[in-house]
Parts: sequence; structure tokens; C-alpha cells
Amino acid sequence: MKNNNVRVVTDRIPLQHDGDGSDLFNYLHMAKPGDIIEAQQFSRQWQENELFPTAQKMETIVAKRGSMDLAGKKMITFFYEPSTRTRASFEIAMDMLGGRVIFSTENAADFSSLAKGEDIRDTILVLNRYRPDVIVLRSKTEGDAKRAAEISLAPIFNAGDGVGQHPTQAMLDVYTIKKKFGRIDGISIAMAGDLAKGRTVRSLAYLLGKYSDVTIHLVSPEELKMRDDIKDYLRRHNVFFYETNDLRQVAPFVDVIYQTRPQKERGTEAYPLISDSGYFAINPQIAGMMKQHSIIMHPLPRNEEIEREVDKDQRAVYLTDQIDSGLAVRMALLQMYLGK
Amino acid sequence: MKNNNVRVVTDRIPLQHDGDGSDLFNYLHMAKPGDIIEAQQFSRQWQENELFPTAQKMETIVAKRGSMDLAGKKMITFFYEPSTRTRASFEIAMDMLGGRVIFSTENAADFSSLAKGEDIRDTILVLNRYRPDVIVLRSKTEGDAKRAAEISLAPIFNAGDGVGQHPTQAMLDVYTIKKKFGRIDGISIAMAGDLAKGRTVRSLAYLLGKYSDVTIHLVSPEELKMRDDIKDYLRRHNVFFYETNDLRQVAPFVDVIYQTRPQKERGTEAYPLISDSGYFAINPQIAGMMKQHSIIMHPLPRNEEIEREVDKDQRAVYLTDQIDSGLAVRMALLQMYLGK
Amino acid sequence: MKNNNVRVVTDRIPLQHDGDGSDLFNYLHMAKPGDIIEAQQFSRQWQENELFPTAQKMETIVAKRGSMDLAGKKMITFFYEPSTRTRASFEIAMDMLGGRVIFSTENAADFSSLAKGEDIRDTILVLNRYRPDVIVLRSKTEGDAKRAAEISLAPIFNAGDGVGQHPTQAMLDVYTIKKKFGRIDGISIAMAGDLAKGRTVRSLAYLLGKYSDVTIHLVSPEELKMRDDIKDYLRRHNVFFYETNDLRQVAPFVDVIYQTRPQKERGTEAYPLISDSGYFAINPQIAGMMKQHSIIMHPLPRNEEIEREVDKDQRAVYLTDQIDSGLAVRMALLQMYLGK
Repeated sequence: MKNNNVRVVTDRIPLQHDGDGSDLFNYLHMAKPGDIIEAQQFSRQWQENELFPTAQKMETIVAKRGSMDLAGKKMITFFYEPSTRTRASFEIAMDMLGGRVIFSTENAADFSSLAKGEDIRDTILVLNRYRPDVIVLRSKTEGDAKRAAEISLAPIFNAGDGVGQHPTQAMLDVYTIKKKFGRIDGISIAMAGDLAKGRTVRSLAYLLGKYSDVTIHLVSPEELKMRDDIKDYLRRHNVFFYETNDLRQVAPFVDVIYQTRPQKERGTEAYPLISDSGYFAINPQIAGMMKQHSIIMHPLPRNEEIEREVDKDQRAVYLTDQIDSGLAVRMALLQMYLGK
Repeated sequence: MKNNNVRVVTDRIPLQHDGDGSDLFNYLHMAKPGDIIEAQQFSRQWQENELFPTAQKMETIVAKRGSMDLAGKKMITFFYEPSTRTRASFEIAMDMLGGRVIFSTENAADFSSLAKGEDIRDTILVLNRYRPDVIVLRSKTEGDAKRAAEISLAPIFNAGDGVGQHPTQAMLDVYTIKKKFGRIDGISIAMAGDLAKGRTVRSLAYLLGKYSDVTIHLVSPEELKMRDDIKDYLRRHNVFFYETNDLRQVAPFVDVIYQTRPQKERGTEAYPLISDSGYFAINPQIAGMMKQHSIIMHPLPRNEEIEREVDKDQRAVYLTDQIDSGLAVRMALLQMYLGK
Repeated sequence: MKNNNVRVVTDRIPLQHDGDGSDLFNYLHMAKPGDIIEAQQFSRQWQENELFPTAQKMETIVAKRGSMDLAGKKMITFFYEPSTRTRASFEIAMDMLGGRVIFSTENAADFSSLAKGEDIRDTILVLNRYRPDVIVLRSKTEGDAKRAAEISLAPIFNAGDGVGQHPTQAMLDVYTIKKKFGRIDGISIAMAGDLAKGRTVRSLAYLLGKYSDVTIHLVSPEELKMRDDIKDYLRRHNVFFYETNDLRQVAPFVDVIYQTRPQKERGTEAYPLISDSGYFAINPQIAGMMKQHSIIMHPLPRNEEIEREVDKDQRAVYLTDQIDSGLAVRMALLQMYLGK
């Protein structure tokens, strides 16, 4: 169905895939530069030279309440499972740049073609006939974003595909670190909580692997340790990593604690957040141990793994800078891919 | 999280709370004048001098198919439970004034942060990062609107919080009475049906208590009588009220019959609308008893408690003036709070 | 509630109902020319002289990424059951012409008035107070579109009413045939699959009955044959029709195969698509038998009744021309009814 002749190919987003990560993804089959499928697709150079500076410009646009740079551009947000926060961020990013959402659904699975047994390819082909400039896709099935991209003329932005990836979350996370420290090289980060099933820490690990001298402390209960595929990846990319079950051991010297939530909806059973067998939550005691210029991150939604008293801490960025970064990064991606 | 320095404080909407009503609400903690949390928050003076005249202007704008007074202004409608009618009224009010809805969800509870255990405060803080000019909030939990307002920089419009309040409904009801009779002082109103659980009659009673010489006839089955908190409020505000179980006794002399629906979704069992033990429905017989210049109101949706033959009666305003008032009042609130 | 004085009556859309079809519909009660309720409402002359040429113009507008012809016009899409594809097509059609969707819901039944027992008439009257230029209505109950039209000042576009009609689907189907063959007279079409419960083939049969020398081959399992009401209609309109259970018998000489899906959601049990007792699916073998200038149509969503290898066939139009026709036809209807 593809017609590469009519597609404007841009060289601004070089696909410097490093060959790691999802076996599903074969970049020989990658359709077009506009697609955002998985974190490892984006090189360090592109992040530093393109994404971060553009995101920074976007923040000044937000401060001015928006621009009309994408006037006339059209987004479809097509969500097979609900994700209010992600959908809001994408739709508001489009609105901030003067573009418009021409169709939006958050319950596609309830009644759409897939519910009736249709393949996602049919759906994507149909949506393409409506001439969107971008399709933001959220699905329940790993690999759907890639399947959609292979067949879509409009760029596909993966807004999460099941247990697969959520690449724009990882981008906003590294952008937040960059903003706070001026660099990502040499950073020391503790990832805490449900590392086995948390999609965000996995995607973030892929991106951090592209930088130098990064140290990762993996802080999780024994049964929720980071899986081997990521650890192998980190080894290949010379990322130092350590595993522990006590946040107190690492809090005093890391630059970042990236806290995650037990993934109950993916089968993780509740575990003691603070007990003799481990220390996996952030409370004022942990925050008090941290360096003055460290930060506390969380992809949200947050349950009890960060106590609410911590919110007021200047180092807590999960309800402020991270949200702003999400908007700025998604605006940047839209601007780079859809703008002139 | 609040920064009162950057918030423009307007004195156009004085909070003349009379100290009655919800114990939850402590106006010492009230964040900002833009919030619309509960009916008793709004003084008679503000209603008469600000709300009603502005709503009247809004009706002329509707007749001209809208204005651009709120061009560039942004609304988020965030509904944790569905309410098509209320959401439509708010979103179309914003559209009528040239503003836009930058994000809308009607099933937030199914998949958003709250569903995953997150506190509504996190959600409101996140939404605030997107720089909305107003957040219209519908929740399932009494007090959520207040909790949201305490932490939100953007004004919170309460579009119903569980068994709590639905203040804009009460405003449109008093505005409808004002339009029809030119005054609210001295009005005689029968409230009929499920007075124990009906949220709208409770909010309306709060507003009527601010006027003079109002008489309320409470017409309900014994087990669905108006609760004591409201009756105490009415006594304190010198509102005459009577209780009865027969609409025929009051229909001939009241100015307004405000009819309500059995609140099945809140546990009210069906009761006989017309029987030996009482008379709680409006049929042509009841309508035929009413004064020529009286009106029949209902907050909708309507079941059998107003028979369909009554719809054609000139005095029936529930499918016409009340809907128009709802749009005009919500436009007025947006204009007053968001306009220059 | 109707006020014919304020309604601008247009004579552009003569109602040349031929008296056939739904008993529900009495055109003496038909409210206004803008309503689109059922396929048989539209004469051949109107289709050929108005609809098709306007749809053709719309395709040039799509190629130019839209117009502002309907700037300021307002659509409400009110869906009591989900239909992502239909809602997208209508909303994007409105957007393409510069109009806007002022309110949209896809789950009206979950929480709206009808769920609480309210009649659809109340809902339509309420929506009319918001001054929409058109209401696109999808309901679960046959006849709802007519009931809505009787009481609505705004034109009602029926986007499917239960087991009733889906007239814009039939229009896009005949428009697709017209585009491909330059004519509809004399066409030979095989309708295959679940003919008993498929709403689209029923509506399409009504429209084809208005043309000359049309031949229809009805290819279905015995228990899913086209029902007698449609066959009687075809007889009265001099449409030749034949019944068979083998697509191979007709594939070599028909101009069109219109394939349909087993209507599982309406109680059709799965049947063998290819077996000794019949041949009801399109695979490369069937496609290979077809004439060079024939086409393969399907209303989507598609399951296994068209094998995916067939998608690449030049004659397959279900993922391309039919979708384009749907957008063009809906734009044309909006332009004709709402434009100056």
C-alpha cells in the first residue's frame, strides 16, 4: 500500500538503531523516518542535537501559550486502551502548536474493528485515507506500533503497545535529566520498584545505554528484578549496573531516583515497600539522605511508593518538570516531523 | 503548589459564603475566586448584579450563534463519571464564546490515575501543567471539587461531585425562575418527588435561602422527605416550608413545581407516583390546576414523573427554558471568570 | 416543538420516496428535507444529479486538504453505540469542510438519559437547544432516527439505528460503483455472506432498486438468505435476482462482488466459508476468476471472508475507494444540507 514517491523523506531524524532490543523490529523494513516505535531507534546524537534543543524551544512556546506553527496539521489519536494522561499530553501538544485533533477515541477496542476481529492493518489503512499528518496509536498488543508503521503513510507515534514500549516516555525522562544536570554522561541513577514489568524503566535503560559513564542501581524485590535482556543490553553498552534491595544504600550518592509503581494490572502482587527484606519506597527519610542537587522521578500514576510528604521537596520533579518535559518533548516531535 | 503571586485575583466574584452547608468546605482555605464548588458560595447580590445580567447577555450571543470573547482560552473537561448532558452544556458554552476544549474525557475513572489508586490531587496538578484556563470536574466522590480547588491554579468548576453538589444546576434553576417571574423574592415553589436523594433540590434550596419571603412546599413520599440539614438551613434563613404528600394540594397556588426523578442509581426504590397514599407526578390534571403564570421545572432526565402530554403545556420549561438557562449560565460563568 | 417558520426549506433534496421499505416511516410526517433516515428516501434523480456530482467535487477538496465552506457550522455526533469508523468518517468530513464538532460522545447509552429511561425525544429536544446545524445519530433501536427527525429542528443524519438502516453506507456503496463503472444501470452484482442480518446489503438493495437492468446474485448459506421483504421490493422494481450458495458460479461474470461478514453480534453463528455445502469467501482463486474490470467491495470490518492476499488485487476497493467514497459522500451531504 505504500507509495514512497509521495512521501516527503526527511533526513533530520536519522535512524541510528543499534541493533539491540526488540527482535520484532527490523529496520530494513522500517517504513519512514517519521515513525516513533521504540526507544532504541533514536541515537544519542539526534537526542542531543535535535530533540533536546527543539524541546527547549517548545517550552518557550508553552510559556507564550502556544504557537500556530502546525496550523492546518491534523492528528488522529487512536487508543485501544485507555490512558488519559498520555492522550492528554499528545492532544494538548498538538493544540499548543496550532494543529488540530480531527478524531480521537480512547475506547477503540470496545467497539472498533479489532473488537470484531479485524486486523490492525485494516484500521490503519482506513485511517490513512483521511489524510492525517500523524496517527498517535495506543494498543494492547506488543508489536502493533511496528505493524501499523509498516503500512501507514502517516507517521505512527507509539503511545504504548502493551508490554512493549512507550518511547516518548523515555524521551521525556532523559530530557528531564538533561535539563536538571546539563548532561546525561556520567549520571548515576537508581531505578526502584517493579523493574520486571515496568515498561518505563526498560525504555529508559535503552536510552541511557547510548550515553557514557552512566551508572544504574537496580533496586527491587528479588522477584521483580530487571530482566536479563535489559541487563545484557546494559553490559554491551558499558553501562555500570548494580542490584540491591535497599534504597538507603544508594540514596546518598545517586543523582536520580527513578521510582516505579507495582504493576498490578500486569500481575505484580503487592510487596512490602519498607520492611526488613528491603526498602523500595521514598519517604522523607530517604529524601533526607539524598544529595542537594539530586532529583526524584516517577512516571505516574503514583500510589504509596512515594509518600505524599515528599511532594513538597524541591527535588521532587514527578508532578512538575517531568510533566512539562512530556509536553515539550511531544511538541518537539510533532514540530520536527510535521513542521516545515 | 500554589503561587498566589502569579494568580490574578479578581474582586468581581466576592465569596459571600453564609457559613451554612457543607462542613467540608472551609473558606479560609478557599484558594481563589474562580472556583465554583457549591451553591451556598454565591451571594444573592452576586447572583442579581453579576450572574443574571451576564447570563442575559449570553442569550443574545447564543441568538447570534456565538462570539469570540474567549478566543484562545482553554477548557479541560475531566469527568470521572459520565454525564452527557452536563458535559455537552459546558463544552458548547465554551465553544459559543470562541474558546476551545483542549482535552475531554468522560470515562476518567475507567483508566486514569484514580482507577490505579492515585489521589485526585496528583491528577489536578498534572492537568495544571497544561495551562488550562478552567478545569470542569465531575467526580464520584463528595468533596473532590474542593480538594481539587485547593491545589489547582486553574479555576475548578464543579460539575457534580457524587452525592455532594452540582452548583451550576442550581444557578440555572434560579436564573430560570428569575427570567420567568422577574424576581425570586416572594416566590412559592413546590419541590416534588425524591427529595431525600435528589442533589438538585438540595442545591436549589441553598440558593433560595438567600432570597426573601420564599415558600417551599416539600411534596414527597414519607421515606423520601427532605433531610434535616436542609430543613435546618431553611429555618435559619426564614424560608417558609411545608411538607405534604399530595401535589394536588399545592398545585393550584404555587408559582413553580420543581419535579424530580426517583434516584434509582442512588438506591431509591420505585414508589407509586399516583396512588391513595400520595400524588407525586405531574399529569394533565395537575397541570390543569396550576395558575396561568406558573411554570413546571425538572432537572432531567425525566421518566414517568411528568407525563408526556404535559410537554406541550406552555408552562412546561424543562425541555426549553431550563436548557437555555443552563447554557447561558455556564457561558456567563466562563465569561466572568475567564474574560478580560 | 417544531416551528416551520424558522426553518429554511430547501427544495434541493426532493423526497421521492417510492413507498417501499420500512413501515415505520410515514413521509406525511416527515419533518424537513435535511433528514437522512433511510436509503429508499433518495431518488435516482437526486443521486445522479446532486449527490454524485457533489461527492466528486468533495474529492477535489480532500486532495487540497480541505475547504472552509462550512466555517461556523456545528455538528453534534451522538452515538448510543460505538462505531469508530462511522464516527470518524462523519467528524472528519465536517472538519474537511471547515465546520466543527461541538460535542461528541460514543457511549451515550452508558450514562445518558436513555440509560436512565428517558425517551430519545427528550434528548433530541435538549440537543436542539444548543443550535447544532446537524445531529449525527447512532442508536441501538430501529426507528430512533425517524423519531428523532420528527421532533428535531436540526437535520438528523442516521448513522445506523439498530437493525434498521445505515443510509450513508448505501450511498457510498452506489457512489463507489458509479465511480468505477461510470453507471449503475445494467450492473451485475453478487452479494455474498450473511444476507439475512447484514444491514448494509439491505440498504444497498433499496438503492439499486432505483436503477435499471440491475442483476443481483444472492450468495449465502441457506439459513442466511436475504429476507422476503427485500426480495419483494426487488421484484416490484424489476431487479433480476438469483440465489445460490457458490461464489464460483457467479464470480466469472459479475461486475461487483459485495462481500459481507457474519453478523455475530446479531446472533449469526459462524458458518463454513469454503466447504462442500457452499463457497462464501473471496480468496485468490475467486479473485482470479473475476473479470478484469470488476471490483471487490466490503463494508468493513473484515474478518476471514476476504483473505488478506486479495488486498493487493487491483480490484479490491474495500480499503481504498470505498473509504474515500464514504468521506466524499458524507462531505457532500453536509455541503448540500448545511452549505449556502
